[in-house]
Amino acid sequence: MTGEPLRARGTTSPARLRQAFEGEAVRAGRGVRRTLAAAVREAVRGGRLAPGTRLPSSRRLAAELGLARNTVADAYGDLVAEGWLTARRGSGTLVADRPDRPDRADRAADTRPIVSRPADGPSRAPRHDLIPGNPDLSAFPRTAWLAATRRALAAAPDDALGYGDPRGRPELRAALADHLARARGVYVSPEHVLICAGVSHGLRIVSRVLTGRGARSVAVESYRLDRQYGLLEAAGLKTLPLPLDTHGTDPVPPVGTDAVLLTPAHQFPAGTALRRDRRTAVVDWAGRTGGLVLEDDHDGEFRFGHRSVGALQALAPDRVVYLGTAGQTLAPGLRLAWMALPPALAEEAVAAKGRIDSSEVVSQLTMAEFIASGAYSRHVRAVRRRYRDRRDSLVTALARHAPQVRALGTAGGMHTVLGLPPGTEQLVVESATRQGLRVAGLSRYRHERAPNGMTDALVVGYGAPSDAQWPQALSALMRILS
Amino acid sequence: MTGEPLRARGTTSPARLRQAFEGEAVRAGRGVRRTLAAAVREAVRGGRLAPGTRLPSSRRLAAELGLARNTVADAYGDLVAEGWLTARRGSGTLVADRPDRPDRADRAADTRPIVSRPADGPSRAPRHDLIPGNPDLSAFPRTAWLAATRRALAAAPDDALGYGDPRGRPELRAALADHLARARGVYVSPEHVLICAGVSHGLRIVSRVLTGRGARSVAVESYRLDRQYGLLEAAGLKTLPLPLDTHGTDPVPPVGTDAVLLTPAHQFPAGTALRRDRRTAVVDWAGRTGGLVLEDDHDGEFRFGHRSVGALQALAPDRVVYLGTAGQTLAPGLRLAWMALPPALAEEAVAAKGRIDSSEVVSQLTMAEFIASGAYSRHVRAVRRRYRDRRDSLVTALARHAPQVRALGTAGGMHTVLGLPPGTEQLVVESATRQGLRVAGLSRYRHERAPNGMTDALVVGYGAPSDAQWPQALSALMRILS
Repeated sequence: MTGEPLRARGTTSPARLRQAFEGEAVRAGRGVRRTLAAAVREAVRGGRLAPGTRLPSSRRLAAELGLARNTVADAYGDLVAEGWLTARRGSGTLVADRPDRPDRADRAADTRPIVSRPADGPSRAPRHDLIPGNPDLSAFPRTAWLAATRRALAAAPDDALGYGDPRGRPELRAALADHLARARGVYVSPEHVLICAGVSHGLRIVSRVLTGRGARSVAVESYRLDRQYGLLEAAGLKTLPLPLDTHGTDPVPPVGTDAVLLTPAHQFPAGTALRRDRRTAVVDWAGRTGGLVLEDDHDGEFRFGHRSVGALQALAPDRVVYLGTAGQTLAPGLRLAWMALPPALAEEAVAAKGRIDSSEVVSQLTMAEFIASGAYSRHVRAVRRRYRDRRDSLVTALARHAPQVRALGTAGGMHTVLGLPPGTEQLVVESATRQGLRVAGLSRYRHERAPNGMTDALVVGYGAPSDAQWPQALSALMRILS
Repeated sequence: MTGEPLRARGTTSPARLRQAFEGEAVRAGRGVRRTLAAAVREAVRGGRLAPGTRLPSSRRLAAELGLARNTVADAYGDLVAEGWLTARRGSGTLVADRPDRPDRADRAADTRPIVSRPADGPSRAPRHDLIPGNPDLSAFPRTAWLAATRRALAAAPDDALGYGDPRGRPELRAALADHLARARGVYVSPEHVLICAGVSHGLRIVSRVLTGRGARSVAVESYRLDRQYGLLEAAGLKTLPLPLDTHGTDPVPPVGTDAVLLTPAHQFPAGTALRRDRRTAVVDWAGRTGGLVLEDDHDGEFRFGHRSVGALQALAPDRVVYLGTAGQTLAPGLRLAWMALPPALAEEAVAAKGRIDSSEVVSQLTMAEFIASGAYSRHVRAVRRRYRDRRDSLVTALARHAPQVRALGTAGGMHTVLGLPPGTEQLVVESATRQGLRVAGLSRYRHERAPNGMTDALVVGYGAPSDAQWPQALSALMRILS
């Protein structure tokens, strides 16, 4: 869920950087490289250099300051490594987004330019991230994960550290087959589980299998994670948006479609579950036509009510590719996701994955141990409670502060859709941004050829803030909506 | 360094498996699925089912045994997950290679079919692996690695666990830039370090950059890791083998070549270092023509003598892509490798890598900590000593038991080339295989269009055996050669 690179927004002059540099004393033993780096760092931290500002080339700044070009390039390099600056092809060196938290620059890139700067002043970095798809990283169970790593490293045979099975470690595939059966009703044997580096990686693999079999088109939901359309199209598959009606997506693809990509348990972004008769209908379609159903179950474990929605895959294990991930339940940085494959596709998928694209093995062994010990189920329950509490407080706050706003898709997941008066979506997004709140408008998830559209709305992810930040983020959101 | 899939070698009959099944008592509480799995496992372990043997389809065996088809399929699935069997598209279910060590099935696939079965008896799984390119996995510093993980997880900001910088974690890039400067003389700033999942992954990325710039050909060494030729060709680049003379590879490519891939520090497999005048010559070529040098330094840290051979990259950081890996110094399963990129190529390489192909983050943070704490340098020194001792014992043993055999390329790395009388290479490889010794003939690394050839020889990797196994492996090798 990284995204567009930061766009350049204005340029600073060498003279202005000279000011900053000269204001910064060359301390004993520090040298000019570190002094220059400190000057730029302070200018960014203090807001004098706003995110997106383009810096002069190292050659130009070196000439202005009378330094060797390498010294300037090195200082820039230090700041890039620290996350204060980014270097992009064709854009030169820019001040990074959210320089106070180095890694956010890339994560934040998920959305459009983040900060709309008021014309009359410096920009403010957003204080709260309500972009959907980002889990609460402060909930990552570091201690339990480390303990599982310890046990996994103690138990693993030497050979586990070598060039691995391209499907992934057998321990992990066995643990997942068992877990998925219990938690999601998925019907798969370990030999048909394929470990991949994320849901997108999984979709790329399936795309290759499909094109390898001569497929040309995949039906997709009219509203969908925007990145996934591009991924399928890049693989040479035409994406055909499915119509929406009052019951959600009609999932049966038009004649001649080779596959359909769905989020049956919790539609992204609408938040609805695929209706029972439509689950049956799409599986019937697959059986009748030989088509393939791609089931993206990325947040299927986060269902708040008593009635969980099991995986579609169980209805037709021979026709459904099931995709799940630890990116939402644990952390995206683990790059751990999995597919349950129809047996007839398994070997083609392994070949498409390629033999050396295997995932890092210690995290695989750790995850296997984490699941087998019960720690994973405990963790999922804990974060589910956390997200349910946030959903509850959001619904309560809306009732009090913005009773006119309708919340959709509140039965699970880590986001909800908040309906807005027609024509106001863009204004509300911009207003939120000015208040330091990153939110996404519903329209950004709409397929460009979608046959019909939904109302104006915000898609509010409540996953990313920590427990400590959430009350503030919620208050800020209420100020926008009330 | 995985390779060709296991090839089917013969088929077993349902009747024979019925024998095995009926010989295995159905114990209370075990059920038929586990009983069947145990019967097959025992038949494999006991040598009655040789590696490569094709099993009957689950449908056919179920009919023979009077079991439900799913029961048989499940038993097969269990055995695949355990590594006793493999399932390959178009080949059905086969007995895996080296079933005594589940993961070896895939790793072993690096070479041709491993066991030449004598016509008159069952095959024996190889006891010792002397295929080059496999490090001693028993040397992996599990305790120190776990300690580094603990420190890394304690120190990492929450955001480190999110969607990462596609170049890799800044901590790791900074640690590597520093380490590579000290250990290999590489001149690179952290912003131009790109983390990748292996040297092959790095080469795929560079191939995409090259083809994106319109490149069509890459000069390669006449003897080379065979997989790399295929990788470049698959990316749409023609590989042009460079001539060999008595001083090694003449590295200056023919007119019109866009790039050259070399192993300057320690030629694979010949083991020589690129001569000084030739280092200069190839860098001059790059500067003159705008060509690119790809420096594969995968075992550059394993130089035994006092004089280390620094990276070619330092001669022309703007024209050389440097590739290094933790796969040889630590373990392939970490999927951690790195490139030092010419600044002008850095952004194209990041784009070619793709945004979601980032590596697992905990291992990146651990590696950064491992390097920064000095543990990595200590570890490299320790394994270098270990491999040097093996090289020494190999040279000593040759002098005593096979004085007619000349050892080449003994100054570093994890392998050496042993010259053989003309026309005997294939026989020696087969004889070794029969004795349970996996070795590679030099000819398998030869480019099919190589202008000239080297003598018959064995390429003996002494990395893979553990310290405990090495004396036995060495004795077995001496029996073959003496």
